[in-house]
Amino acid sequence: SYSSGTKKVTLIPGDGIGPEISAAVQKIFTAANVPIEWEAVDVTPVRGPDGKFGIPQAAIDSVNTNKIGLKGPLMTPVGKGHRSLNLALRKEFNLYANVRPCRSLEGYKTLYDDVDVVTIRENTEGEYSGIEHEIVDGVVQSIKLITEEASKRVAEYAFQYAKNNNRKKVTVVHKANIMRMSDGLFLRCVRDMAQKFPEIQFEEKYLDTVCLNMVQNPGKYDVLVMPNLYGDILSDMCAGLVGGLGLTPSGNMGLNGALFESVHGTAPDIAGKDLANPTALLLSAVMMLRHMELNTYADKIERAAFETIKEGKYLTGDLGGRAKCSEFTNEICAKL
Amino acid sequence: SYSSGTKKVTLIPGDGIGPEISAAVQKIFTAANVPIEWEAVDVTPVRGPDGKFGIPQAAIDSVNTNKIGLKGPLMTPVGKGHRSLNLALRKEFNLYANVRPCRSLEGYKTLYDDVDVVTIRENTEGEYSGIEHEIVDGVVQSIKLITEEASKRVAEYAFQYAKNNNRKKVTVVHKANIMRMSDGLFLRCVRDMAQKFPEIQFEEKYLDTVCLNMVQNPGKYDVLVMPNLYGDILSDMCAGLVGGLGLTPSGNMGLNGALFESVHGTAPDIAGKDLANPTALLLSAVMMLRHMELNTYADKIERAAFETIKEGKYLTGDLGGRAKCSEFTNEICAKL
Ligand SMILES: CC(C)[C@H](C(=O)O)[C@@H](O)C(=O)O
Ligand SMILES: CC(C)[C@H](C(=O)O)[C@@H](O)C(=O)O
Repeated sequence: SYSSGTKKVTLIPGDGIGPEISAAVQKIFTAANVPIEWEAVDVTPVRGPDGKFGIPQAAIDSVNTNKIGLKGPLMTPVGKGHRSLNLALRKEFNLYANVRPCRSLEGYKTLYDDVDVVTIRENTEGEYSGIEHEIVDGVVQSIKLITEEASKRVAEYAFQYAKNNNRKKVTVVHKANIMRMSDGLFLRCVRDMAQKFPEIQFEEKYLDTVCLNMVQNPGKYDVLVMPNLYGDILSDMCAGLVGGLGLTPSGNMGLNGALFESVHGTAPDIAGKDLANPTALLLSAVMMLRHMELNTYADKIERAAFETIKEGKYLTGDLGGRAKCSEFTNEICAKL
Repeated sequence: SYSSGTKKVTLIPGDGIGPEISAAVQKIFTAANVPIEWEAVDVTPVRGPDGKFGIPQAAIDSVNTNKIGLKGPLMTPVGKGHRSLNLALRKEFNLYANVRPCRSLEGYKTLYDDVDVVTIRENTEGEYSGIEHEIVDGVVQSIKLITEEASKRVAEYAFQYAKNNNRKKVTVVHKANIMRMSDGLFLRCVRDMAQKFPEIQFEEKYLDTVCLNMVQNPGKYDVLVMPNLYGDILSDMCAGLVGGLGLTPSGNMGLNGALFESVHGTAPDIAGKDLANPTALLLSAVMMLRHMELNTYADKIERAAFETIKEGKYLTGDLGGRAKCSEFTNEICAKL
């Protein structure tokens, strides 16, 4: 079990502000005496024996061995033929469920104060299949691929998550009125899974309806499960409700491991200037600790971070303050 | 031209609350002396010579002759094989651009007071192609179809709309980082069209980014153009920001005609009880008048409706009032 002894965790610091926010997380973990050991790896694509660019073998091996990782933002190389490295990692490790909790922070005021939702996104197929054709000149098709296997898997994850985290309700988000077969299959898989979790409420909603209701009354929702693209959209929208991607964590869950990441960009304009906000990566690391059953450490760090944000004395620029990343980090450490 | 003489307009009252809100619009138009003549038709599906259910020929003929119509909500028959009638109409008349303006109403307070966006949605293809296959048991694909023809057409519509309506900026909303070929084609078509409208600002944004920014700062956006499904989502979300589908109009623009519709549901629970809010259908009818170059009537009616909402004395239940549909309607008529 994770809870005995020191556990190795792969760290992918990432590009742009990645290294400084990763260092901030490491510092906070040290201050909290978290019993883990970091194994930092670089994922800058290297040319393989087949001439194609890919993730370095050492990075793949590290994640495969440790089965758990924390990842900062990665730059997507510009130009044709380069697929997002973020996506490559999700694929490589078969990270089938993307979990993004969004909660209103007491210390950070937005228009909403009652957001507490978790989007659970199918993370391997759907609109992200990568299968596209140009049928004739000027006529292109992209294939949305939905399988029973992946749909069941993420459905089960969602209900299990709801159960483990004392959540009341799971909403499946779909457009089965339009994509009757693909979203229809996804919907049926979630509906069937709901039967096995009678203690969790279950409802079915159209994606457009959820978008409308979410901005009017986010308190209506709890755990939401949905195909890949819908999760991309809804999770960003929910992040917007509570203050943006700088404040929201994310976890990618796989059969053989899990990768936690901040989903904001690399912010090249402020990189290296000690101005970045490490909160999203820190809260992702807190999610990771809970996954490792290191809940005491998770709770302690989360409390210190929320407290620091609430006091408002050491906020980074994106949160309306003037503190440096290091000042914010030191304040959290001081509270530990 | 539309502006001389009396013009016939097809009216599809629709199901549920459709007939009462249609009657409200007709009453208001009469009070405003709008020089149009209604031709009411029924679109309840009938069985054709081939045994299949379809839209009655009389309804099709009416829209084809008048080239303009107003439509209340339609029920989608439950059960396999029934496609949405709303969609069937969009297809039948090749209504290629769906235009949904969303503006904060002075008289109706929400969390946002600076929304003034117009979503322009490709309305004939994309994720709504209806092409789906079950490859093997438990593996389904839906095809998203993007063509240069339809993309160019809606792109041109968007810029022309911006120009005619004194709008400053067009944003194309896409996921070409994921669907490189299909959304890539759509993106290129809009980008190319932008060249022909140098007086209109142009920007390119990812769908997830727009969702996030829209809930934080809707004032950033102006006219937005996008593939079919993205428009479905974003238009509902924007409607949510200003008070819901009961307040927002919509127009479907075609090569040979245009159909204006309220996009809320049929609300069977309150149908026939004189409790429905006719605003969305009325504002859709106002859009229709502008399309017919009957701007004076459009302005007059819109002003009376906004004034009535602002005063707040005769609001229907969905707007937090206790007035009947007929009382709200009478108040607007009284102001004309
Ligand atoms: C970077 C991009 C490919 C990615 C996505 O579309 O999934 C991002 O938006 C996310 O949500 O993780
Ligand atoms: C009723 C439904 C088929 C339709 C759609 O998905 O387009 C609706 O949501 C809309 O926005 O007009």
